[in-house]
Amino acid sequence: MSTTTKRAYNFNAGPSALPLEVLQKAQAELVDFQGTGMSVMELSHRSATFEAVHNEAIANLRKLFAVPDNYEIVFLQGGASLQFSMIPMNFLTEGKRANYVLTGSWSEKALKEAKFSGEAVASVSTKENKYKNIPTEVEVGENDAYVHITSNNTIYGTQWKTFPETGNVPLIADMSSDIMSKPVDISKFGMIYAGAQKNLGPSGVTVAIIRKDLLESANTNLPTMLKYDTFVANNSLYNTPPTFGIYMLGEVLKWIEAQGGLEQVAKNNEAKAALIYDAIDNSNGFYYGHAEEGSRSLMNITFRVADEELEKQFLKEAEEAGFVGLSGHRSVGGCRASTYNAVPTEACQALADFMKAFQAKHQ
Amino acid sequence: MSTTTKRAYNFNAGPSALPLEVLQKAQAELVDFQGTGMSVMELSHRSATFEAVHNEAIANLRKLFAVPDNYEIVFLQGGASLQFSMIPMNFLTEGKRANYVLTGSWSEKALKEAKFSGEAVASVSTKENKYKNIPTEVEVGENDAYVHITSNNTIYGTQWKTFPETGNVPLIADMSSDIMSKPVDISKFGMIYAGAQKNLGPSGVTVAIIRKDLLESANTNLPTMLKYDTFVANNSLYNTPPTFGIYMLGEVLKWIEAQGGLEQVAKNNEAKAALIYDAIDNSNGFYYGHAEEGSRSLMNITFRVADEELEKQFLKEAEEAGFVGLSGHRSVGGCRASTYNAVPTEACQALADFMKAFQAKHQ
Ligand SMILES: Cc1ncc(COP(=O)(O)O)c(C=O)c1O
Ligand SMILES: Cc1ncc(COP(=O)(O)O)c(C=O)c1O
Ligand SMILES: [Mg+2]
Ligand SMILES: [Mg+2]
Ligand SMILES: [Mg+2]
Ligand SMILES: [Mg+2]
Repeated sequence: MSTTTKRAYNFNAGPSALPLEVLQKAQAELVDFQGTGMSVMELSHRSATFEAVHNEAIANLRKLFAVPDNYEIVFLQGGASLQFSMIPMNFLTEGKRANYVLTGSWSEKALKEAKFSGEAVASVSTKENKYKNIPTEVEVGENDAYVHITSNNTIYGTQWKTFPETGNVPLIADMSSDIMSKPVDISKFGMIYAGAQKNLGPSGVTVAIIRKDLLESANTNLPTMLKYDTFVANNSLYNTPPTFGIYMLGEVLKWIEAQGGLEQVAKNNEAKAALIYDAIDNSNGFYYGHAEEGSRSLMNITFRVADEELEKQFLKEAEEAGFVGLSGHRSVGGCRASTYNAVPTEACQALADFMKAFQAKHQ
Repeated sequence: MSTTTKRAYNFNAGPSALPLEVLQKAQAELVDFQGTGMSVMELSHRSATFEAVHNEAIANLRKLFAVPDNYEIVFLQGGASLQFSMIPMNFLTEGKRANYVLTGSWSEKALKEAKFSGEAVASVSTKENKYKNIPTEVEVGENDAYVHITSNNTIYGTQWKTFPETGNVPLIADMSSDIMSKPVDISKFGMIYAGAQKNLGPSGVTVAIIRKDLLESANTNLPTMLKYDTFVANNSLYNTPPTFGIYMLGEVLKWIEAQGGLEQVAKNNEAKAALIYDAIDNSNGFYYGHAEEGSRSLMNITFRVADEELEKQFLKEAEEAGFVGLSGHRSVGGCRASTYNAVPTEACQALADFMKAFQAKHQ
């Protein structure tokens, strides 16, 4: 495949940029996978060829993310949004309370769904501060079934830097927008979940990592497809999984490994984000960030152009210059650059340069 | 792209064969979609480019399948299996009974899930006849919320030829394994649903076609992602949809149109199935079919080699000869050839020839 492929500067919040190498490999083998005379999409999910793809993806996820043996890894459908419902259905057991830490719109939505299953509260919220920060402490109740956090707030651009202590109460994290962007001590969590479409692959696959003891004490009287145990007991092959998405996720994992694993990926992500935050911080207030400094996300950089009219102009000129996805979420406006794993350093450098040039021209 | 691509004779039951032309088009534009400098997988689901893909797929489905205006078309995740749960959650309203017609394993599973939501019964079943036939009549109760059928029984190889009359009670059909294999009078149904992975595309997308009045009287107090209205009200874009799967489904629909639409596709499917059924019927009992003649599926041809030892040999030699997916479902054994839309006539001819040659050699 040609290496002169035209590539946009893709800062989409999700679905988002995928590694060019992964796309080129998928392209090369799209019609004939491993000499089978079939596309990977045409394989039976019960065939040895597909099961190898599937199991390799799970094994690589376990290895690269250092998932301990007492955790199950499953692939689900329905996006992180369906997890908002499945988590309380499975883990909000009789007489217990679900405890949500609100740090943005996604945590609000997660809480809303929990209320269908039982008692669910927002023990802490940074809403009054316009979700500009991550709380320094959480309040854990004795009777809590779990504490739920959003590790990275895609819309507001904040991110937990250290995870809260919840004692015996399982900590559950929606890592949709920062999963595998850095090493994480999985043993601190009861469960981690994420839609694949930001750091791990195309949309249509959701990853969940669940500590085994949570599964043992989970609610059992649930519809088959809404019970985690169905996926665990059948290695995520109870029904037809999204086979192409799992294949792509597996290829992205191999790419992460080729980058040097999560230590190196984390370093790259820090350097990438610094390029853009520096352009903001050195702008003398021409640009300003939404998040407080200690809570800044390395994945979603949210900022404003101080002059509202110029902000429109900025987004317009950026688009014309080949930058994609820089408008803030429709619920908050402003600007947002999502710099997930697969967004190359050059794209971040180009954006920083563009920001500086725009400032020089217009201020 | 080369037209000499090696192609297996793919008789998989699902995921299954896709049209070569569709795969080749997807391959050609996989890295750079419409000059955007992005893969279709890297587009935001809220971008104009993706929304055009999405809306074109819905519009083409409506046109080709002749879906009347009083029906909504939505794309879901979770496979047909999740629909087994969502249907009763949404449509088995207070005080009503769900009525299931059992014609195979999939209808049994659908019934099992309905029981989580309320009263659900098997009014008719052909299990005693080993699911070799489709019933000639159904029993509709006054108090039925709906009648559920499986239009094509993927495992047993039977298919409804005319659909039952259910009067004012909505008829709901799982068409996973024969959707858009022929024209259907949609107005007879309250709802039709299908996983895409047999006739419509890769796995990971589920299509539902729902009559509007069903939505109006549906249960409302449901988790957001399990309520059809969420998908209807947001044009299937409430959360991130499986974008690549929807794109592929759209391409398959264009291919169906290029074949001459469903009238022509139905003729092709009849001719394809006849090649294989003839090989069975003209074998003097060397092969025999599972389904009774009037109930035979044009999509899944289930048969046995009368001599059990020879059956093993048949499956082994077929595999060596490049035929894929001919083993019957693990729950019933035997042989099965799935001849969905995208399976070419030549593959069916090759299988019929192989069956005759095998018989000549071994009997
Ligand atoms: C943190 C977070 N959680 C949940 C979601 C919802 O994910 P999905 O669209 O896969 O349901 C998103 C989507 O952007 C997100 O960023
Ligand atoms: C008729 C029928 N219904 C339902 C299913 C289950 O579909 P899924 O795997 O998409 O959940 C299948 C799968 O083969 C099927 O053939
Ligand atoms: Mg998903
Ligand atoms: Mg947020
Ligand atoms: Mg599906
Ligand atoms: Mg069946």
